[in-house]
Amino acid sequence: MVSKLGILHGVGVGPGDPELLTVKAARLISNAGVVAYLAANGKDSTARDIAKGYIPATAQHLVIDMPMRVEREPGEKAYDAGAAAIAEHLKQGRDVVMLCEGDPFFYGSFMYLFARLAHDYPCAIVPGVTSMTASAASLRRPLSARNEVVKVLPATLPEDRLREELMTAESAVLIKVGRHLAKVRNILGLLDLSSRARVIINATHEDEVVTPLLDITEDTLPYFSSILVYAGTEAW
Amino acid sequence: MVSKLGILHGVGVGPGDPELLTVKAARLISNAGVVAYLAANGKDSTARDIAKGYIPATAQHLVIDMPMRVEREPGEKAYDAGAAAIAEHLKQGRDVVMLCEGDPFFYGSFMYLFARLAHDYPCAIVPGVTSMTASAASLRRPLSARNEVVKVLPATLPEDRLREELMTAESAVLIKVGRHLAKVRNILGLLDLSSRARVIINATHEDEVVTPLLDITEDTLPYFSSILVYAGTEAW
Repeated sequence: MVSKLGILHGVGVGPGDPELLTVKAARLISNAGVVAYLAANGKDSTARDIAKGYIPATAQHLVIDMPMRVEREPGEKAYDAGAAAIAEHLKQGRDVVMLCEGDPFFYGSFMYLFARLAHDYPCAIVPGVTSMTASAASLRRPLSARNEVVKVLPATLPEDRLREELMTAESAVLIKVGRHLAKVRNILGLLDLSSRARVIINATHEDEVVTPLLDITEDTLPYFSSILVYAGTEAW
Repeated sequence: MVSKLGILHGVGVGPGDPELLTVKAARLISNAGVVAYLAANGKDSTARDIAKGYIPATAQHLVIDMPMRVEREPGEKAYDAGAAAIAEHLKQGRDVVMLCEGDPFFYGSFMYLFARLAHDYPCAIVPGVTSMTASAASLRRPLSARNEVVKVLPATLPEDRLREELMTAESAVLIKVGRHLAKVRNILGLLDLSSRARVIINATHEDEVVTPLLDITEDTLPYFSSILVYAGTEAW
């Protein structure tokens, strides 16, 4: 007898505040038999920390061990192992709720598991609040209006590309700034945009920091940091 | 005696599915004494329709009448009148929960009320799920990964600007397409991107439509439509 396959739910848990999960995410997690999440070096998981108030005590935890090295993409092996472990549950007919920071399909690691599993197993995606709009809320400054272009720019890009994109953006969100802060600061200075840049660290987390870029003296930022640049927006 | 001012809450209600409100939005709306929202010609309100299951029967409705003409920004007068009506409640110490489609600070009308009221009254912003990431979820295709640039491009922009931005985007979300579809189709054709474009109408609403751009024969799209273009992304 072929048993019914379980469903893999890729669930966005939002930027940090546990109240910024969606009602749907809260429902799925609260009813989960198996919750899965990535954990750096098998231990730390921001997605689990955000969602912990919703995870039932009876849920089985499937921890996908991610060997983390700063600014390097984790190896394919970890995703292979994670996908195989998830597949074992799905084959047995057990649903798996995978917890994803922010939104699963917006610069998330979930896509690497989705790519490995979606052809063979039913998958459902629950979108979430991104740190991008959460950061604008924390800044109390609209991200974009009317005909304005918003660009999401990984700070890991080459300097030329970043400069060209920033020259023509009304509004930009620099993500993955981390140890690329010196490069970003230099480009914003050359474009005379430094005073229009705001740093948000750990948006909507309890230890959120919101500050003008010009007040930052360090040359690196923590991992969960963004810089919002209001280059030509009317919201400035 | 000076009474305590009420708080204006700008609350994102997400893209359409009532389960895609955040827990925080659901809580604020469920406890609201006054809910405010824009209504086209005093009548239709998508934000109210999305949130209606959470609005208590006892809540007072503050309907901000927006005279709508296709593709024209509503007049400042409507925002002035709306802000004044909200201010009356806040002065009396009553909180107002303003319902905003998607996210309040991502191409939302809320910013025009915020601009009028935030200097004099306490305001709080609750970010929401945008139709941008909801559309990627509906498409079952990640929006962006690693070092990819995502651009949000209002289709109301001039043809030259749209073409230049699309030439250098790994991933793009065209919003406000409506009657600009012919222009957009032309540009995507010139850039050989037509086959990489997907149309999403009413993302996560009950009548959601997801279809390749090449299957659309009309020259206009409904208001709540986006086109996702996977130009150079590895997700394609």
